[in-house]
Amino acid sequence: MFIRNCWYVAAWDTEIPAEGLFHRTLLNEPVLLYRDTQGRVVALENRCCHRSAPLHIGRQEGDCVRCLYHGLKFNPSGACVEIPGQEQIPPKTCIKSYPVVERNRLVWIWMGDPARANPDDIVDYFWHDSPEWRMKPGYIHYQANYKLIVDNLLDFTHLAWVHPTTLGTDSAASLKPVIERDTTGTGKLTITRWYLNDDMSNLHKGVAKFEGKADRWQIYQWSPPALLRMDTGSAPTGTGAPEGRRVPEAVQFRHTSIQTPETETTSHYWFCQARNFDLDDEALTEKIYQGVVVAFEEDRTMIEAQQKILSQVPDRPMVPIAADAGLNQGRWLLDRLLKAENGGTAP
Amino acid sequence: MFIRNCWYVAAWDTEIPAEGLFHRTLLNEPVLLYRDTQGRVVALENRCCHRSAPLHIGRQEGDCVRCLYHGLKFNPSGACVEIPGQEQIPPKTCIKSYPVVERNRLVWIWMGDPARANPDDIVDYFWHDSPEWRMKPGYIHYQANYKLIVDNLLDFTHLAWVHPTTLGTDSAASLKPVIERDTTGTGKLTITRWYLNDDMSNLHKGVAKFEGKADRWQIYQWSPPALLRMDTGSAPTGTGAPEGRRVPEAVQFRHTSIQTPETETTSHYWFCQARNFDLDDEALTEKIYQGVVVAFEEDRTMIEAQQKILSQVPDRPMVPIAADAGLNQGRWLLDRLLKAENGGTAP
Amino acid sequence: MFIRNCWYVAAWDTEIPAEGLFHRTLLNEPVLLYRDTQGRVVALENRCCHRSAPLHIGRQEGDCVRCLYHGLKFNPSGACVEIPGQEQIPPKTCIKSYPVVERNRLVWIWMGDPARANPDDIVDYFWHDSPEWRMKPGYIHYQANYKLIVDNLLDFTHLAWVHPTTLGTDSAASLKPVIERDTTGTGKLTITRWYLNDDMSNLHKGVAKFEGKADRWQIYQWSPPALLRMDTGSAPTGTGAPEGRRVPEAVQFRHTSIQTPETETTSHYWFCQARNFDLDDEALTEKIYQGVVVAFEEDRTMIEAQQKILSQVPDRPMVPIAADAGLNQGRWLLDRLLKAENGGTAP
Repeated sequence: MFIRNCWYVAAWDTEIPAEGLFHRTLLNEPVLLYRDTQGRVVALENRCCHRSAPLHIGRQEGDCVRCLYHGLKFNPSGACVEIPGQEQIPPKTCIKSYPVVERNRLVWIWMGDPARANPDDIVDYFWHDSPEWRMKPGYIHYQANYKLIVDNLLDFTHLAWVHPTTLGTDSAASLKPVIERDTTGTGKLTITRWYLNDDMSNLHKGVAKFEGKADRWQIYQWSPPALLRMDTGSAPTGTGAPEGRRVPEAVQFRHTSIQTPETETTSHYWFCQARNFDLDDEALTEKIYQGVVVAFEEDRTMIEAQQKILSQVPDRPMVPIAADAGLNQGRWLLDRLLKAENGGTAP
Repeated sequence: MFIRNCWYVAAWDTEIPAEGLFHRTLLNEPVLLYRDTQGRVVALENRCCHRSAPLHIGRQEGDCVRCLYHGLKFNPSGACVEIPGQEQIPPKTCIKSYPVVERNRLVWIWMGDPARANPDDIVDYFWHDSPEWRMKPGYIHYQANYKLIVDNLLDFTHLAWVHPTTLGTDSAASLKPVIERDTTGTGKLTITRWYLNDDMSNLHKGVAKFEGKADRWQIYQWSPPALLRMDTGSAPTGTGAPEGRRVPEAVQFRHTSIQTPETETTSHYWFCQARNFDLDDEALTEKIYQGVVVAFEEDRTMIEAQQKILSQVPDRPMVPIAADAGLNQGRWLLDRLLKAENGGTAP
Repeated sequence: MFIRNCWYVAAWDTEIPAEGLFHRTLLNEPVLLYRDTQGRVVALENRCCHRSAPLHIGRQEGDCVRCLYHGLKFNPSGACVEIPGQEQIPPKTCIKSYPVVERNRLVWIWMGDPARANPDDIVDYFWHDSPEWRMKPGYIHYQANYKLIVDNLLDFTHLAWVHPTTLGTDSAASLKPVIERDTTGTGKLTITRWYLNDDMSNLHKGVAKFEGKADRWQIYQWSPPALLRMDTGSAPTGTGAPEGRRVPEAVQFRHTSIQTPETETTSHYWFCQARNFDLDDEALTEKIYQGVVVAFEEDRTMIEAQQKILSQVPDRPMVPIAADAGLNQGRWLLDRLLKAENGGTAP
């Protein structure tokens, strides 16, 4: 069971070609994605209402898609506009159409009540398409429930253990984050960690234009269902970063980590790591991207192994530790939303 | 749950060797098939009643089969005739034996109440072994419930969409078939379509001895559970085919499509396309066979994709269209038979 | 559901390295096995109590193991001794520790109530490490429930059918074994078969130092859950073997066959065939080992095929035969133990 009334990511813009049919399972539902003749993304149930044939082995015809089993044709709103050999088209001859918004190079989809879909609620990822930032989009398929990935992202303790040579530093295990819950009711968490006069991670060292100790920051903004924005960087110690001043030689990144459930035990994961320096250095873009990929494979190895144990021994209790503050708040928010959508009967 | 009191096909005659043990799952049951010393096919439960060892890794001994786990020996009626180290053989030491009839090169099996098995009820496929017809037998394994294949065979609309370059013609999508239900209570459907003064399909064009417009016919006779006989052909327009006259240059075929459930989501499929012309042209036999194979792979791609969606989203309703008349009658007959066998409690 | 209050084998001693983490599923539970700094085997739940990460992708640190997700460290008794970033360690922060005894080159594990684990109850396999005997340890992974293997081992009838060219002889199918149940309440079965003035099996022929007829014996001692000791051999006919005299040229073996459930449909199987002659002949050690492997593959083929039929047709009754006396007693003892552990509610 999944939260439905929220904006999920369905794809990077480049995953959906200018012509032709793309498909993906989201929240256990088969979804068809394609671009109409204006280039706008259309998201439909990937299942003909007639006999359940998948539409992705059908054919795009202008703004519409035709099922290539018996020829029913559907428009972007899911209405059937042609039934071969039949004049009348009963209104129930339709498939689900999902609200879609293309923004910041992401294709956002609303899987819940369409009347509640408000594009203003979409989280801003300006660094994906701002001329002042540069990134390379990434995607990972996960053999694990998306909440295990959320746990991982809202936790800092694991940096020292899972990523000792990539993201982690010795201090990562012991420094307590500051966690703030947004008071406006949107359920957003802000988690802030400052490592003052500390070593940089290897990832930062590799691109920094200074040496020695740094004031490092990790400022997470997380929103349900699984949307992470991160402002992270390192500045030379004592140059005022904690007070809000970011000197030119500071290493600054904006990071994106977004998950959408595929099934109860598999997930989609979109990510990128943007920078605001050396924008035209393509080798650097690739180096940063590969650095993230290496670190994220470290996470994936652990999380998929964790999912296997949870599937094998599903009923053993989990024992909380002090470092769980971030992930506990995330889980609490997800449970609350799921419960709210299901009349208080959800777990 | 499957209809049991009917004749199913278990194999082409050539699938069961003169000596040795063949096995196949039919209606979720493991079945052993072999020929006795007279060459007659024997069908037994492929499971020793002692400890459930499969008999197909046993050994044929004359008309009998011996389990090679503990040595129990069964005769063609399923009775145990030898228990090593034991004189007495209790009557319950037996396995199921299925009535079998070899006819028209097919091995027919009765999986229901043996007392109701009447070979006179077996549908006639004379073109399989008549000297006036020629065919090459075909078999396909399907990752789909057999009823999805029945739906496909009782539907003409899909010819234009699934088979545009093989079986289909532009007119296939719009011409309504005439559907007659047999009044004698056997539940047979006859579906007739005439395409007058129309283009031939590519399959017919490739073998026809005339050019230009044709009067084409497709006369289906379908019987539960999944037995299709088809009389199909093309004659030069205006030579009297619709009135029953078939001129020598007419292209005439008899077609066989038969399914037997393997499991709820997999099926066996036997087919052939017989002709009554150029009987000794082996290249033509192969050409026609390959033409059918290509078209049937088009169906299989669609139907297995449909099964995947049905397995993923099993509870979404199907919306009927006018072209469903044939498949609806087929489904209705199957449901009625299943219900009748189960005291009215079946779905 | 498995019997828990008994000693199971977890591994051969050589399977667990001097340093590093070994893991295996036993009775559906993930188990971690490693050696402490004294070389003693430690068995822990292979699941961190914090978030269910498996510990085998963690790190051994001295006598302890550290989870490499969030850094919790556990000692050999399963107690958490370090939580990064947290001073207090609540007592419930612990994982299961299993009593382990290393004896006769086997690692024995107790999966039930630790208070009831008595190493004196461990069955003696002295020929594994006695200087007077020589063997090569073997392991097989089985796609079958362990009770199907127990059935096989407590049955002699199958020797003639499954192993006609390896272990079996023509007489194996008809000679009745003598079965004795131990009166002390431990549930041990002793099954004895003497083949007087009979042919040797091919396995014995290949190593015997005499030719011609033999008095052969198979003396099984079987204990729940799945522990077989076998004394087997062949002596020249009339040299007094049945009366207890074993002449020097007699072929004498001690055999080990031990199973531990992995899941309901998979099993671990440890075996060896020890001899007390030609101890330093390594080629003979290998020849005997390979002879057993060939015969055991014959069993595995049959038993895994049997498991498939049982999974496909789980509800068909099994018909007993006279030769089932041994396996019936084994099954009865297993059922009784399982029932006793579960308050009489088990099947």
